[in-house]
Amino acid sequence: MTQYVFEMAMTCGGCANAARRVLGKLGEDKVKIDDINVETKKITVTTDLPASDILEALQKTGKEIKQLQ
Amino acid sequence: MTQYVFEMAMTCGGCANAARRVLGKLGEDKVKIDDINVETKKITVTTDLPASDILEALQKTGKEIKQLQ
Repeated sequence: MTQYVFEMAMTCGGCANAARRVLGKLGEDKVKIDDINVETKKITVTTDLPASDILEALQKTGKEIKQLQ
Repeated sequence: MTQYVFEMAMTCGGCANAARRVLGKLGEDKVKIDDINVETKKITVTTDLPASDILEALQKTGKEIKQLQ
């Protein structure tokens, strides 16, 4: 399992929920959401999936997103 | 061209921009965005595409969405 951190243009709780939903669609057993923080705009997940899968799912929200680590 | 109205759980300008981006991906020549209103949560578009295509694109944002008309 690897932990990845992404920065996403979240500006409200609705934005955070959108991130939660698209990640949930990947499978709750596949992606563990460690943290979604609207203040820092950081999303931290632990997963066996490649980071590109997570990035692609988050991009579907229509928000600007980049991988930090 | 047909006009459709959708109700989407938008709570901030970032949510509205997310809707704008996913609709833009369908092609600016294909979907005319008439209005996106965060207050009323309504998205109004005019298009030749079937309403299901618009709904599907908006659902990708991870937000709750339904067609009103």
